[in-house]
Amino acid sequence: MIQVGIVGGTGYTGVELLRLLARHPEVSIRAITSRGEAGKSVSDLFPNLRKNVDLCFSDPKVETLSGCDVVFFATPNGTAMGMARVLLTSGVRVIDLAADFRLTDPNQWHHWYGIEHACPELLTEAVYGLPEVNREAIRSARLVANPGCYPTAVQLGFLPLIEQGLVDTNFLVADAKSGVSGAGRKAALGSLFCEATESLKAYAVPGHRHLPEIVQELNKRSQKPVRLTFVPHLTPMVRGIHATLYAILQDDVADLQSLYESHYASEPFVDVMPAGAHPGTSSVRGANLCRIAVHRPQGGDAVVVLSVIDNLVKGAAGQAIQNMNLMCGFPETLGLEGIALLP
Amino acid sequence: MIQVGIVGGTGYTGVELLRLLARHPEVSIRAITSRGEAGKSVSDLFPNLRKNVDLCFSDPKVETLSGCDVVFFATPNGTAMGMARVLLTSGVRVIDLAADFRLTDPNQWHHWYGIEHACPELLTEAVYGLPEVNREAIRSARLVANPGCYPTAVQLGFLPLIEQGLVDTNFLVADAKSGVSGAGRKAALGSLFCEATESLKAYAVPGHRHLPEIVQELNKRSQKPVRLTFVPHLTPMVRGIHATLYAILQDDVADLQSLYESHYASEPFVDVMPAGAHPGTSSVRGANLCRIAVHRPQGGDAVVVLSVIDNLVKGAAGQAIQNMNLMCGFPETLGLEGIALLP
Amino acid sequence: MIQVGIVGGTGYTGVELLRLLARHPEVSIRAITSRGEAGKSVSDLFPNLRKNVDLCFSDPKVETLSGCDVVFFATPNGTAMGMARVLLTSGVRVIDLAADFRLTDPNQWHHWYGIEHACPELLTEAVYGLPEVNREAIRSARLVANPGCYPTAVQLGFLPLIEQGLVDTNFLVADAKSGVSGAGRKAALGSLFCEATESLKAYAVPGHRHLPEIVQELNKRSQKPVRLTFVPHLTPMVRGIHATLYAILQDDVADLQSLYESHYASEPFVDVMPAGAHPGTSSVRGANLCRIAVHRPQGGDAVVVLSVIDNLVKGAAGQAIQNMNLMCGFPETLGLEGIALLP
Amino acid sequence: MIQVGIVGGTGYTGVELLRLLARHPEVSIRAITSRGEAGKSVSDLFPNLRKNVDLCFSDPKVETLSGCDVVFFATPNGTAMGMARVLLTSGVRVIDLAADFRLTDPNQWHHWYGIEHACPELLTEAVYGLPEVNREAIRSARLVANPGCYPTAVQLGFLPLIEQGLVDTNFLVADAKSGVSGAGRKAALGSLFCEATESLKAYAVPGHRHLPEIVQELNKRSQKPVRLTFVPHLTPMVRGIHATLYAILQDDVADLQSLYESHYASEPFVDVMPAGAHPGTSSVRGANLCRIAVHRPQGGDAVVVLSVIDNLVKGAAGQAIQNMNLMCGFPETLGLEGIALLP
Repeated sequence: MIQVGIVGGTGYTGVELLRLLARHPEVSIRAITSRGEAGKSVSDLFPNLRKNVDLCFSDPKVETLSGCDVVFFATPNGTAMGMARVLLTSGVRVIDLAADFRLTDPNQWHHWYGIEHACPELLTEAVYGLPEVNREAIRSARLVANPGCYPTAVQLGFLPLIEQGLVDTNFLVADAKSGVSGAGRKAALGSLFCEATESLKAYAVPGHRHLPEIVQELNKRSQKPVRLTFVPHLTPMVRGIHATLYAILQDDVADLQSLYESHYASEPFVDVMPAGAHPGTSSVRGANLCRIAVHRPQGGDAVVVLSVIDNLVKGAAGQAIQNMNLMCGFPETLGLEGIALLP
Repeated sequence: MIQVGIVGGTGYTGVELLRLLARHPEVSIRAITSRGEAGKSVSDLFPNLRKNVDLCFSDPKVETLSGCDVVFFATPNGTAMGMARVLLTSGVRVIDLAADFRLTDPNQWHHWYGIEHACPELLTEAVYGLPEVNREAIRSARLVANPGCYPTAVQLGFLPLIEQGLVDTNFLVADAKSGVSGAGRKAALGSLFCEATESLKAYAVPGHRHLPEIVQELNKRSQKPVRLTFVPHLTPMVRGIHATLYAILQDDVADLQSLYESHYASEPFVDVMPAGAHPGTSSVRGANLCRIAVHRPQGGDAVVVLSVIDNLVKGAAGQAIQNMNLMCGFPETLGLEGIALLP
Repeated sequence: MIQVGIVGGTGYTGVELLRLLARHPEVSIRAITSRGEAGKSVSDLFPNLRKNVDLCFSDPKVETLSGCDVVFFATPNGTAMGMARVLLTSGVRVIDLAADFRLTDPNQWHHWYGIEHACPELLTEAVYGLPEVNREAIRSARLVANPGCYPTAVQLGFLPLIEQGLVDTNFLVADAKSGVSGAGRKAALGSLFCEATESLKAYAVPGHRHLPEIVQELNKRSQKPVRLTFVPHLTPMVRGIHATLYAILQDDVADLQSLYESHYASEPFVDVMPAGAHPGTSSVRGANLCRIAVHRPQGGDAVVVLSVIDNLVKGAAGQAIQNMNLMCGFPETLGLEGIALLP
Repeated sequence: MIQVGIVGGTGYTGVELLRLLARHPEVSIRAITSRGEAGKSVSDLFPNLRKNVDLCFSDPKVETLSGCDVVFFATPNGTAMGMARVLLTSGVRVIDLAADFRLTDPNQWHHWYGIEHACPELLTEAVYGLPEVNREAIRSARLVANPGCYPTAVQLGFLPLIEQGLVDTNFLVADAKSGVSGAGRKAALGSLFCEATESLKAYAVPGHRHLPEIVQELNKRSQKPVRLTFVPHLTPMVRGIHATLYAILQDDVADLQSLYESHYASEPFVDVMPAGAHPGTSSVRGANLCRIAVHRPQGGDAVVVLSVIDNLVKGAAGQAIQNMNLMCGFPETLGLEGIALLP
């Protein structure tokens, strides 16, 4: 039984962490912090947790958090980098669900996030928490940068092609569709029911913060530099990311289906669908799972990969717990066995 | 005042035709037919029309329809081609909202629709009813093939680039997202509320019937053959198509924004958005309008075009009435001035 | 052609007024004001109005507004009462879509709205703008209090029973369900897509501000004092109010269906449905219409009335324009002929 | 570890049973039957179950089912009564999620369901499976009639008042709102996304089949005969029932809040909310839980009870497993600890 803390638990990532951790057999939640809601019962904000989580939000204090084995940051970008060093020094292991430790180059971070990085020396130590790529490094990591939701879906979809050098890396397209929960639990006009329902639109076409993260990580696995056009879309559903990936095959590939199946054969949380399938986001709602299908329309040289996750689970809280399980030597799937809710 | 008939008025295209035609100042609806619902009041099926349309569905009879000036077919594919010849002979002008006259090659039609074409000799006469391309031909047409919903959004988005030869036509991508009304008003499991809501998925990735239509029409305007990867998606909303188009620029183009603005400067139903915009499908809900934005992310050689329509209006019934206005010499915008309903 | 002004046009009532007034043949919109958005183009906020309304928001100035024939207030409660007197003095006729002039007793107003009334002397002059009840008074009114959305649906449903004294007024129940647009266009957590979709809940059960308004108006038509239990619910849709009304019949009533049909026989915007019908809110979406059905389950002494409106149209902007038409001597239905958008 | 069978597993109740039973530590699923889908993999129909349930649908055979300890019927009404006797004779315990054994009077059954009852002699043996009322009888039952979804929410809400004789039983109102999954997984026009979304309507006002069930069961607990007006509504969400209950208090009741809290103090699956609360259906989505709030608006003699459940869980599959746990001597909450999914 380990003690965990959650910093910044008032968003959708926070409530999802609580939902999953409250049923994790090896976890005791020691503290959940929020400056704004300190003193308030967690179940007042999140009625689904009534009778399941009896905690109140508390002020984020180093004394309390340093007594934890693992601390999750479910905070806005720029918060974790201010507290990580002192917690690590206290022997706490840190999993940041925000972007603070995802980009290894502090100049890139400054460019995309608009603030100076507070502890650039930790950027090289931080392990990018995509278990399907970095499993061994995660086991021994002190500091894990939990991937973004889009980057998880896009990387898992592209990796088998990129690693094998099968596609032209000069022109990759990731057309990604996200549910509204990706915008977080904050009172913004664009996230209102009346604005978001019954509509669909692209956003951040000139450049989204997840672009450099995806490119950085794909480049580590690619022999040639990756040039990616990434267009996110806001879609009228709560949960789910559907990444539709396009690339041009360079050689005649024998069997894309087998390639994907063997690549992910031993992965507990990646499901390669049968040939011809079209996975829907609802098939992973609430589950820590990425379902992938690979197509080659009309046998041409274009390959289309469909990759779906629940942005709050495999794209955030579930993946963070998967990382925690690895870091703590628990079975990787512990507490993550929940089946998607359908319908 | 002209007399119009609607064959097959029990689907969503039918009710939308009725909604618009009932307020068209130059139209009197003579008959609306349905084999299955003959004798039933139109407003029993479509309660929004109660007190506005007093017709009953009738059996489709040539005698009745041949008294019309214009007959719309809002039928399943393969119906219009069985009745078009006799109506044309009677002097009726025909607008088919299904696919029967969209492909000029009867073998292509057979390949994609699975049935022999009943009147291949009419395929060359039929005018493809995209007014932004074929306005003059439509004015004098006897038989108009109203474009599909995806093809409308995709063509209007790609045309300025294709016509100017600015992009590599070997690798075009159209990632299109449709509301559920595109699947029609038929009792199918996949269209159930509980199946379609809160989910998003691609479909027909191996090949969708709108692909040959788009390629055929773009090829007419392109100097080089067009190779298009087209992936449609089912999204949890009723109305709307959002086409996200990707292409590789071949030359350094001075100003894409100006190109689009000048291309569509005189079009009443195409709205080129300001630079940097991201049109949402809700901004055209219920309106006969295509809104387009053009982007060049990070100034690279990829161009991204966003094109949105209401699939039932500019993608079906509204465009059909626009064609009717042209054929009958009415102002092109007559009866189509309705503003999108928002929220 | 009259000149109209709109004060406070940045909410959903404001955009709906604009959508309808922009197509009204006798109206020219002179000004639309907003302190917060002054100088901004209306179509930046409401993209559906692009190419249809070319105005910018302006600061609310008496000089501009006093040049109007009619001024609509689409402001939060408590604003109109600060400007009404000076506008009336200038000869402007005022229609307030907020609650400032709905309650005739200033103490009641203070009790339910928490602020002192700024011009109690106008409360007796103000005409309650429900045309089905006060048509003649509205024609000559200088100041019209446009009814609330719930009160419109509830009163139109109850009135035939109350006026005839057919039910026990000691125990009336109005169970009302509203779409989220009723909460307005403001960034509030409870109105977020992720909070409001896929959920349904009652609110304000201890007492909602529309309760005293309904009771006040029903009492004017009832021989005995009305005691009403009114429970509003937030439901996961944008537009629509469905009021389900319950009462106990006192006498054996010959024919409730005929009673309702004759009561509303000459009303252009009330549609009494056939016996046994269950009107859906989608059948009035975007239309200025109230559809009503009356039931007597198992022939017992309980009567159930179903009353549906679009809260933004017959429950707000449409009814305001209906009042304007009456006040200005236009045909009552002018500019309000739009058919509901379905699906 | 017990062996269970599911007859008729292709509906939403079936997939929910599978989702819950697949994680139940004391259950092995021996067979799931479907005439129409025999031979097909369960996960082809329900993609959320891929990798979690490896069964195929099989033809319903007595030989297979009679080897089970417990058989669930998730079939249309009228099926279970044809197979129950032979299974019971084989020593199988039966839980029917349909209506076959809910009404004790076979004439009532015939009246409301339109068919002769096939085994009226079992109607008296069958135990009505509402554990909060019949816990002890359920433990030893061979045949359990799992309650309907509306009856569960309505009874749990009314029972404390009825049992104490606090309200006038001559005029009770249950205004109930259901998600679309209550209509089942069948291709019906009214359940289409485009028909059901963005709309709300009452149905079956003249008489719904759950009315006699509710009245029968409330009468068992009431000193005076119950007269109930029950109006169900179809609302645009997948899961959830919100019952809003109205009654007239007969005496001055000291403290309704305490009454409810003490009534349900030891119930694991009923949560009496704090005074003044308004539970939303999303707070129980996916969970086997009924949340209840009780109000007395303005201190008058009307009492309003808000009662919410997930119709597929506490209203169907979860409650059936709760009954199974009781029948088999397992802890009542086993396999039902899942926390509601929010957002």
